[in-house]
Amino acid sequence: MTMEKGISSVEVLPSKSSQVTAVKVVVKEPETKQTQRGKRVGFVLVHAGAGYHSESKAKEYKHVCKRACQKAIEKLQAGALATDAVTAALIELEDSPFTNAGLGSNLNLLGEIECDASIMDGKSLNFGAVGALSGIKNPVSVANRLLCEGQKGKLSAGRIPPCFLVGEGAYRWAVDHGIPACPPGIMATRFSLAAFKRNKRKLELAEKVETDLIQLKKRRQSNEKGSRVLCRACGRFPVVVGKGGGEIELFSLENDSGTLDTVGAVVVDQEGNVAAAVSSGGLALKHPGRVGQAALYGCGCWAENTGAHNPYSTAVSTSGCGEHLVRTILARECSCALQTEDAHQALLETMQNKFIGSPFLANEDGVLGGVIVLRSCRCSAEPESSQEKPTLLVEFLWSHTTESMCVGYMSAQDGKAKTHISRLPPGAVAGQSVAIEGGVCRLESPESS
Amino acid sequence: MTMEKGISSVEVLPSKSSQVTAVKVVVKEPETKQTQRGKRVGFVLVHAGAGYHSESKAKEYKHVCKRACQKAIEKLQAGALATDAVTAALIELEDSPFTNAGLGSNLNLLGEIECDASIMDGKSLNFGAVGALSGIKNPVSVANRLLCEGQKGKLSAGRIPPCFLVGEGAYRWAVDHGIPACPPGIMATRFSLAAFKRNKRKLELAEKVETDLIQLKKRRQSNEKGSRVLCRACGRFPVVVGKGGGEIELFSLENDSGTLDTVGAVVVDQEGNVAAAVSSGGLALKHPGRVGQAALYGCGCWAENTGAHNPYSTAVSTSGCGEHLVRTILARECSCALQTEDAHQALLETMQNKFIGSPFLANEDGVLGGVIVLRSCRCSAEPESSQEKPTLLVEFLWSHTTESMCVGYMSAQDGKAKTHISRLPPGAVAGQSVAIEGGVCRLESPESS
Repeated sequence: MTMEKGISSVEVLPSKSSQVTAVKVVVKEPETKQTQRGKRVGFVLVHAGAGYHSESKAKEYKHVCKRACQKAIEKLQAGALATDAVTAALIELEDSPFTNAGLGSNLNLLGEIECDASIMDGKSLNFGAVGALSGIKNPVSVANRLLCEGQKGKLSAGRIPPCFLVGEGAYRWAVDHGIPACPPGIMATRFSLAAFKRNKRKLELAEKVETDLIQLKKRRQSNEKGSRVLCRACGRFPVVVGKGGGEIELFSLENDSGTLDTVGAVVVDQEGNVAAAVSSGGLALKHPGRVGQAALYGCGCWAENTGAHNPYSTAVSTSGCGEHLVRTILARECSCALQTEDAHQALLETMQNKFIGSPFLANEDGVLGGVIVLRSCRCSAEPESSQEKPTLLVEFLWSHTTESMCVGYMSAQDGKAKTHISRLPPGAVAGQSVAIEGGVCRLESPESS
Repeated sequence: MTMEKGISSVEVLPSKSSQVTAVKVVVKEPETKQTQRGKRVGFVLVHAGAGYHSESKAKEYKHVCKRACQKAIEKLQAGALATDAVTAALIELEDSPFTNAGLGSNLNLLGEIECDASIMDGKSLNFGAVGALSGIKNPVSVANRLLCEGQKGKLSAGRIPPCFLVGEGAYRWAVDHGIPACPPGIMATRFSLAAFKRNKRKLELAEKVETDLIQLKKRRQSNEKGSRVLCRACGRFPVVVGKGGGEIELFSLENDSGTLDTVGAVVVDQEGNVAAAVSSGGLALKHPGRVGQAALYGCGCWAENTGAHNPYSTAVSTSGCGEHLVRTILARECSCALQTEDAHQALLETMQNKFIGSPFLANEDGVLGGVIVLRSCRCSAEPESSQEKPTLLVEFLWSHTTESMCVGYMSAQDGKAKTHISRLPPGAVAGQSVAIEGGVCRLESPESS
């Protein structure tokens, strides 16, 4: 793949004086490269969370994205379903101690790990999800298994198979279906345990100095938007607490190693079938039992093959502040928008009008999230080409309102994955600005098909 | 209130040869009736589940709907928020042993009760939900408390308050917030325990005669739609199992006393603020940890006040097969549709095209669900009236694809609630036909306001 920088523009949102940055990256297959005979084709785009990715750990984030892409492509090359390919990518992302999903997830208030994950199949439109799941190393595997079991039809005595299981029940279902339980203590890493201890200390300090009166004042303040400066380190607002007239500043909690939330992937296989998945450890020090967007239909991921009303197959995976992504049903919103002609413009408008400018988030200080999307359609080969083989045109984009977002992408025709840390430009305010980038990739059908 | 039967028509859906029945009921305030000075006004519409309501228990269903309406109106008259009024209605519905919500809910595979509930406030657009919650008598109270706490802004140390809690964590949160725990054994009634025992026997029988080969065959059959006749008793399909070449018919499980799922209510207060709520015990013999539409954003309920893009305030509550309501995000879909001019036509088309005809349910034998909706807008008093007071025009509708749906409605200006069991007309097939009815109500502002 070669990359060409395309347009770059800065616009201003009238409603919130938001700065919008749009950078389009065009990615094309080298013309000399021939598809290998009989080799399956497809494309994968992954992300390791929208939030803040420090330069010091950039290498690690990119490396896990690269491995995740490779795992998905290996599956596609072996003839696996798009859902199995996307699951393979997610497992790699979950297994990294640097991401807030699976191993190394944020710990909740009680020091436990509870994960959310979901997956959607664009062909069958089936969905599988788990919420607040403990004791399983790869939550996405359970979500995928729920999807698979759901596709088999009704259970004995006409019972409808579940598509969404939570907590202890989800754990029991997973183990009953042969997914191994993870011994206690394996899921937390030294990074996540250290972050938990620091967060607990911050929370204790905050609660110590907050009298009932100040608590009330603080809550009122937090409902007055735009008056404070976002913490660049974590994309959150500093908490101002006071005692005896004096005020101290206490920065908000760390979420994982700076990333806000969630990992995910979107895949298209050679038949144009799409799949999407998402997985998250949730917010640091969340209340036990809290379920975020990664488990929720329409919010964490969306995949929908082309159909009577859809000229394009679309797949979306979201990341960021769960509550913001839930209240805007962002994954499905992006998928719907992508049915219009200009994918880049459609996604930009969705992030501006349906996310940052959403009336459902009107009281929020900043709206923090990111998405990866792809859409594909069949088309004939390029006019100058002598080949008559049908081609799958894949447009892929990522967009975020957070400080940064780490992505990786790869086609089955490539030897290796590309990775990239997308950042808001200098001066742009996280939570109020949108960065958008992406590319285009043409996938030729294998000669044997 | 007086009721006038309006239009009645039968149409045919081209895609599935579905019969569609539309009955419009016009409800007007008697002209001689004057609003009491200083008395708050508002309107409530409730339902006791879409499914099958036997004639023998019709009185009980109607009675609980009537009481639920009265509770909501009492709250509105006392100046309560729309969310508190809708919660009061739900508590009454949950407390009835005849509904599948709260007390008397369906038991899961392990003989436990796990409830889902959610509430949405049209003014703040905030949402609160619980899933797979045990040990709390009124799950809707926890959902409402989550909504209220969420409206207070951030928690200590900048933590985002949860809007959706599940399982043990939800129970702990409720108890920590002063909601009393319910002693074990209180929630199950002799009806629900007897139904559980009958269902367990049916399940054991089904599993006894199902060999792996027949299981596979049955699952394939269940994916071939339209080939079997729906059970009129429960709105489900009979399960055909076989052993040694012979085939026996085993009817699907009972869900509660014939109702499929879920109770709910929608409310508008005198300022035109809307709220919606929903509560469910879920499917009989569901897997522990299974969460259905009643807990899910956009699926179980929706409420949205009038705004820049919404000429109408809308509130929706759904009932029926959770998986069908989730995959169509039906509550939000109805709310969006209700922004067009003709509410009756908009709801009918939504039920036809976005529910029965949804590509997301293309593999289902029958699509089972129901909705109650209301929409309101401010308008001047009727031209012939000498009064100049602004009036709130409330249009309310119910629609279902199930055999029947029990509803009740009441305005604060009425002395008592009206109740009604809506049924599909003779010959209409549950899961493939839509019944729709509704009315219009004008609410005058109190003279003191």
